[in-house]
Amino acid sequence: MADIPDISERTRAARQAARVLARAQTEKKNAALEAIAVALLGGTEKILSANARDLERAHSEGMSAGLVDRLRLSDERIAAIVRAVREVKALPDPVGEVICGRTNALGVRITQVRVPLGVLGMIYEARPNVTVDATVLALKSGNAVILRGGSAAQETNRAIIALMRGALSCVDLPADLVQSVDDLGRSGARAMMRARGGIDVLIPRGGAGLISAVVHNSIVPVIETGTGNCHVYVDSGADLESAEQIVMNSKTQRVGVCNAAETLLVHRDEAESFLPKVLARLTSVGVIVHLDEKSEAIARKSPQVHEAMIEPACEEDWATEYLSMDLAVKVVESIDEAIEHIRTYSSGHTEAICTRLLESAHRFTTELDSAAIAINASTRFTDGGQLGLGAEIGISTQKLHARGPMGLAELTTSTWIIEGAGTVRP
Amino acid sequence: MADIPDISERTRAARQAARVLARAQTEKKNAALEAIAVALLGGTEKILSANARDLERAHSEGMSAGLVDRLRLSDERIAAIVRAVREVKALPDPVGEVICGRTNALGVRITQVRVPLGVLGMIYEARPNVTVDATVLALKSGNAVILRGGSAAQETNRAIIALMRGALSCVDLPADLVQSVDDLGRSGARAMMRARGGIDVLIPRGGAGLISAVVHNSIVPVIETGTGNCHVYVDSGADLESAEQIVMNSKTQRVGVCNAAETLLVHRDEAESFLPKVLARLTSVGVIVHLDEKSEAIARKSPQVHEAMIEPACEEDWATEYLSMDLAVKVVESIDEAIEHIRTYSSGHTEAICTRLLESAHRFTTELDSAAIAINASTRFTDGGQLGLGAEIGISTQKLHARGPMGLAELTTSTWIIEGAGTVRP
Repeated sequence: MADIPDISERTRAARQAARVLARAQTEKKNAALEAIAVALLGGTEKILSANARDLERAHSEGMSAGLVDRLRLSDERIAAIVRAVREVKALPDPVGEVICGRTNALGVRITQVRVPLGVLGMIYEARPNVTVDATVLALKSGNAVILRGGSAAQETNRAIIALMRGALSCVDLPADLVQSVDDLGRSGARAMMRARGGIDVLIPRGGAGLISAVVHNSIVPVIETGTGNCHVYVDSGADLESAEQIVMNSKTQRVGVCNAAETLLVHRDEAESFLPKVLARLTSVGVIVHLDEKSEAIARKSPQVHEAMIEPACEEDWATEYLSMDLAVKVVESIDEAIEHIRTYSSGHTEAICTRLLESAHRFTTELDSAAIAINASTRFTDGGQLGLGAEIGISTQKLHARGPMGLAELTTSTWIIEGAGTVRP
Repeated sequence: MADIPDISERTRAARQAARVLARAQTEKKNAALEAIAVALLGGTEKILSANARDLERAHSEGMSAGLVDRLRLSDERIAAIVRAVREVKALPDPVGEVICGRTNALGVRITQVRVPLGVLGMIYEARPNVTVDATVLALKSGNAVILRGGSAAQETNRAIIALMRGALSCVDLPADLVQSVDDLGRSGARAMMRARGGIDVLIPRGGAGLISAVVHNSIVPVIETGTGNCHVYVDSGADLESAEQIVMNSKTQRVGVCNAAETLLVHRDEAESFLPKVLARLTSVGVIVHLDEKSEAIARKSPQVHEAMIEPACEEDWATEYLSMDLAVKVVESIDEAIEHIRTYSSGHTEAICTRLLESAHRFTTELDSAAIAINASTRFTDGGQLGLGAEIGISTQKLHARGPMGLAELTTSTWIIEGAGTVRP
């Protein structure tokens, strides 16, 4: 941990700026978001030329196609980013909401009010859309933000951040509401993790390695997001047709996201009838299935299952968040075995059960300990938009502060206002 | 950090026990609390004889009178502890509360439900009442608890914990809902701080040194509690009679608690008329006043102020949480200076303002960043009981998860239940 640069000037500037924003009315914040939308549209050319330089470096350094795709911007992608900015603008302002209140026996009026957290820190990978997303969610909830994006996107991020800072100045808000430590390289992230008191919360967004590094090294409070080793369990007596829909949707609708399914557990009563069909369908769309002994035996007997897509599952498969066209499959003896398997390997994101039995559904909701339990529904519903929170800054898989999708309210804290008339405690 | 003992067997046992308790009905949990109350009353003699051994060791090691007092139990104190157990028993059960819910456009029913956190870790000082308090709050909210009390109370805690474990077995709940690492000495606390995944949240309760050590060394999520450098500000034009009441109540009602006032700020318009009276009253009841230059000049001219109780304030006084009969006093030029002073030195617990002006009150609530703002009311109102939360496990001075008094709800997290009819995401 040698050579941690001093970012206290930036955190102080962020704090000052946050204080100005905390007092800004919703209209002012919305004007800032609109100014950012306009600036990004107007600056599309600048952003794309910066992005081209990042892409060139990425190619020359041999970056994988998947990562290059996340890094690449286009007119359409910038337009989509701008649409997302305007969606956040349209959301209700969480600041000032009265969470609860009462007048006590002494006539003291007590109100708990939602207030901004203050200064957020985001550490994320080379996805320029996160730069904008995180900023506008921070601003709408009254917070300043300090960003550390993946170094592969540094030119793009610099261009985007300059445009957003300019937009803030245009509406007479401090540009320092949005700052970056990208110029400090990797040690910028380390400096953020040590900035206790300067940064109120650090939100790492990215792969398991990034999140674990932040959790282990940060003395700033952290909210973990987005590790999803999600399961779908097909119970004895389940409606197999809808179970098939749910497996397909959970696994294949989008594979690189945290709410995609990674393991399918099938009750032995249904294995013979369910697995041939669902495995045939999965393998036909390109999913590699990692099968335990029992499901492999069934698959090998089923001519519709593409043999080339079958691999035997090993211990590691149960613990892996593939984020790819891969699915681990296991036949279980009972719902007890399914629950025990999920308890052992789950990352606590989302588990789905396909069942007709109330008791089975109840056991999933009371015996498992995950942010979301889907009953006869796709794991893909664990999403801020789907759950009615609006845009999300990430999906928390920890238990403190926020669990599941984090919307604007999760970027706030509260203050108790205690109003008396010279009242003292008896 | 060498030689950290392995407590994974204990955390696993706690997890198993917590799973049993998570499914227990309120009646069962209340029966457990009643059994604990009965066991503590019945075991009073055992507890007192263990306590006598702790007290003897404390005397021989020269422990200060204040600490010895916190360690000492008596028939009356045990009766008070048992009354507190029954108060928690009488509180509503937070588990199962539906926080919010809706049915979405696809007919998917979405419910966010309160569930226990799982396994709590408490690290605290030699106050045996905390051993019981923390346990019953954990149990009522459906959690297991692992305790690390101050080593000076180890005999007392061992006796109390044995009685509580026995009571749990009597009502057919796992004794491992309550465990201790006191037998491991100081390294027990270190082991808890490394038990990520085994312990869901660590709550340090005690002095600033203890809390800071936990915050800096723990990879388990921490909730900071109870550092209170609280301020009372007397605004220009305030009702000086009620301001005097508020200062006296905030400072002297109980001095060793986190919601006691530690600094008095007085607007210069009121200094000449307010300070002689309030300083006379404070010094007459034994408060040592640490005065800045201006307030000292006023005090020295006032014969009613006990000269022997006056000390000049230095920089350190503004930052100190005395927890004793001491008060720092400063004359400020304006409310701006008061706000700036509080921003600089406050621990973010509670700040009180005595004012007649709406604008001043509004500035305190919007420009300061503390867990509670008291307007014409004592700082002593920041308390779970006073704010209507019932018993509290501590007062959080951090912004994430819980802010201000932490009651039963703050010892829970939530699960999203997503119920469809074979529904997939479009």
